[in-house]
Amino acid sequence: MSQQVDHASKTSSDVVPLRGRSVVTLDDIPMTQILDLLDRAAYIDTHRRQVAHTCDGRVLATLFYEPSTRTRLSFETAMLRLGGQVIGFAGAQLASVSKGESISDTLKTVSNYADIVAIRHPKEGAALVASQAATVPVINAGDGGHMHPTQTLTDLATIRARKGRLNHLTIGLCGDLTFGRTVHSLITTLCRLGHVDFVLISPDELRTPEYVLERIRSSADCTYRETGDLNGVIGDLDVLYMTRVQQERFFNEDDYLRLRDTYILDADKLRAARPDMAILHPLPRVNEIAVEVDHDPRAAYFQQVRNGMLVRMALESALLGDELPGYREQKEVAA
Amino acid sequence: MSQQVDHASKTSSDVVPLRGRSVVTLDDIPMTQILDLLDRAAYIDTHRRQVAHTCDGRVLATLFYEPSTRTRLSFETAMLRLGGQVIGFAGAQLASVSKGESISDTLKTVSNYADIVAIRHPKEGAALVASQAATVPVINAGDGGHMHPTQTLTDLATIRARKGRLNHLTIGLCGDLTFGRTVHSLITTLCRLGHVDFVLISPDELRTPEYVLERIRSSADCTYRETGDLNGVIGDLDVLYMTRVQQERFFNEDDYLRLRDTYILDADKLRAARPDMAILHPLPRVNEIAVEVDHDPRAAYFQQVRNGMLVRMALESALLGDELPGYREQKEVAA
Amino acid sequence: MSQQVDHASKTSSDVVPLRGRSVVTLDDIPMTQILDLLDRAAYIDTHRRQVAHTCDGRVLATLFYEPSTRTRLSFETAMLRLGGQVIGFAGAQLASVSKGESISDTLKTVSNYADIVAIRHPKEGAALVASQAATVPVINAGDGGHMHPTQTLTDLATIRARKGRLNHLTIGLCGDLTFGRTVHSLITTLCRLGHVDFVLISPDELRTPEYVLERIRSSADCTYRETGDLNGVIGDLDVLYMTRVQQERFFNEDDYLRLRDTYILDADKLRAARPDMAILHPLPRVNEIAVEVDHDPRAAYFQQVRNGMLVRMALESALLGDELPGYREQKEVAA
Repeated sequence: MSQQVDHASKTSSDVVPLRGRSVVTLDDIPMTQILDLLDRAAYIDTHRRQVAHTCDGRVLATLFYEPSTRTRLSFETAMLRLGGQVIGFAGAQLASVSKGESISDTLKTVSNYADIVAIRHPKEGAALVASQAATVPVINAGDGGHMHPTQTLTDLATIRARKGRLNHLTIGLCGDLTFGRTVHSLITTLCRLGHVDFVLISPDELRTPEYVLERIRSSADCTYRETGDLNGVIGDLDVLYMTRVQQERFFNEDDYLRLRDTYILDADKLRAARPDMAILHPLPRVNEIAVEVDHDPRAAYFQQVRNGMLVRMALESALLGDELPGYREQKEVAA
Repeated sequence: MSQQVDHASKTSSDVVPLRGRSVVTLDDIPMTQILDLLDRAAYIDTHRRQVAHTCDGRVLATLFYEPSTRTRLSFETAMLRLGGQVIGFAGAQLASVSKGESISDTLKTVSNYADIVAIRHPKEGAALVASQAATVPVINAGDGGHMHPTQTLTDLATIRARKGRLNHLTIGLCGDLTFGRTVHSLITTLCRLGHVDFVLISPDELRTPEYVLERIRSSADCTYRETGDLNGVIGDLDVLYMTRVQQERFFNEDDYLRLRDTYILDADKLRAARPDMAILHPLPRVNEIAVEVDHDPRAAYFQQVRNGMLVRMALESALLGDELPGYREQKEVAA
Repeated sequence: MSQQVDHASKTSSDVVPLRGRSVVTLDDIPMTQILDLLDRAAYIDTHRRQVAHTCDGRVLATLFYEPSTRTRLSFETAMLRLGGQVIGFAGAQLASVSKGESISDTLKTVSNYADIVAIRHPKEGAALVASQAATVPVINAGDGGHMHPTQTLTDLATIRARKGRLNHLTIGLCGDLTFGRTVHSLITTLCRLGHVDFVLISPDELRTPEYVLERIRSSADCTYRETGDLNGVIGDLDVLYMTRVQQERFFNEDDYLRLRDTYILDADKLRAARPDMAILHPLPRVNEIAVEVDHDPRAAYFQQVRNGMLVRMALESALLGDELPGYREQKEVAA
């Protein structure tokens, strides 16, 4: 409240590199900017009151062509915590939007209402189409495979918060490594930094695709090994990223039941893990992490939820070109 | 706007007794605090502008696992009128939340977004589970029988606004007294104050359960009488609390039609009532109060809607520990 | 934020003529007030920051008994851009509202929460009923035929923005002129100003109803001619208002396919049009304007979306009696 934000000044000389652009994938964002977004998220976390009016007068539109309440609430809270406002629709409400109108027309329309858009759509490529039609920044909140850049930013922020760094780490990824696009995106982004040892833990039926393995092989000082045995490797890990093993991926129920238990993390399995290993999970979980693990200090998946909101605050303000009060000064002092 | 609220100071030394706790039922809230909430609601009503920034920077999450638009809008308006913001979902949007995720996990997640939660759920006990998992205050907005503490606070606020007191009154309750949990909660709470004469007006099929009658018998100076004849007792009442008689409660339609009209309040029946009797109804009504009654000065049910918003403003700010500007000073002067 | 709005003062002496009333149709709003609303919309467009707190502390309720996302988002954004807040429901969420409760009761309830209401309902006449029950201003956002006053204000604002005036113009209306109530409302309102030459372009099956033609005949210096040939008249037009030709209006598919192409506007047809003709469309479009036309400077339909938000800002603030800072002074200087 005491912070008087001047929109005219903040959109003129203070050029933020990401300002005005859309983010459909992290692949075309320079690594220095990705790391800067993580710095911003960490700064926001410790300067909640200072940043509470960063986006005063802004409006975010959440266009969710399929429901994803968790992701929608995270985007919306992020904007509200920055002082902005929210409009939008989710799933069942969209009848009149989808009725014969193209995504492009909807985005051209919404560009007249909102300053920034988060879009989720069941069809792969929809976010790119949306970003090309819109005259305001668009953030991909999941299309098709439901991979989306803010999930990967969330994962990176959580690893760095727990381990103090993003490489020179042994990172285990466990569960469905074939269809889990969240995992592919995380691996790909970490490979850009290099110096990561991946341990890929899955049943034979759900191994990592060749294009991801090739990405690791071609990266500076990255290695991987594949295994089906979580118990055998858990003691080597700095980070364990759990994913859900969906029954529908298996040909028969016997295989599913046999394998499922192998990939459930519980207190018993955790006894062999390092005392400072970080456990991540993109949530929602079904039963792949036992509830008893929630109270283990290594559990980082609810902290991950919090980081999800923080990286979205960082990204939304950066794309809008609304500078976080005090951030630049603090960074200059640190440098 | 001119009121600059300092969050750091208001969450430190100014200890509000209810601060930080959840409210699943009124039964474990001391009567002094219930009365203080009613005082706060009355204060808010006459100090709208002074309290308009009490919850600046706060976020309420409304998690409505079944639709109840009336209740949801009341909770949301309450937070907006205090300067806060709202996120949430309602009914049809919740697919992705309910998909395999436990209420506990959802509440742990939402605790990272919001400062306070209002939850409505079709299963009895859901609000208690939610309050145990959340790390922020949770308000029960109805679970199972749809009894919820803010409805009872609303009823109490309306009785006090109309009659100037909550006991030394003859209070009639009319209609479905078997399944109407709103009525049970109101009786139970009034019994804690004592000195109330209840007149329980219902068909034989819908009489008050024994546990409620026992509650009245064991209370200081409370009495009750049961009757099926509204006309015969309406002249004795200070307050008449109407409820809906649902057709599905009856074995056959003949019984329903025969009884229904007996429990419809209209101008004709009101001729026998006192000129200052207050007519309450939890709404929505179907036909149990004729529309002609709306213009009678004794009708208090739309004032009740207004009181519903005011008590939610009182409760939300109290649980957040956000002190209403000027309230304490006024109370000290009054004492 | 720097703008301190004083609610007490702005609701006392500064009497705005429209303050406190409901708008179900434009027919009973004096033309001077309609023109003043257009002036206000234009003022808002060039004074975004000055008006950003005009409605601080206000709450708009959007009661959409059927989904119309485009219209809902426009009303909501308008209130948010004025500093107010929004509550409401849309389509699927309304179960509990509609469950046996009359529109009148819902409006009496919501009048306790909100300062102004926008209602959309599938039944003709619902908005009038709502306005009679509510104790706050109600805006008709479409009932029955989906004609609504803010659509016509939007069209007028766009014509005036493009042509500098609302009469002494040749205005073509093309497509479904029988069922397109948007078109009827626009013609009727323009006839109140007089001096408009209408060119009514439609297939024989979809000609303008007699009551609309009679309205034109009885207006001062208005003329019309009917034609089925867009190509033959496009060169004469100052404004071309396109509408959708819906397949279900035709007896057989052959007729539909034969006629449809005649009424699709594309770059080829536009070659014969004047260089400063304005192309309007109420949106959403299906295929009646080719996407290639979007980049033509004559295309005004996305500017129309923007004007829709601006006229809603003008109308909401006027009905609330919240004066736009600086507007009156500017108008006095101009006069």
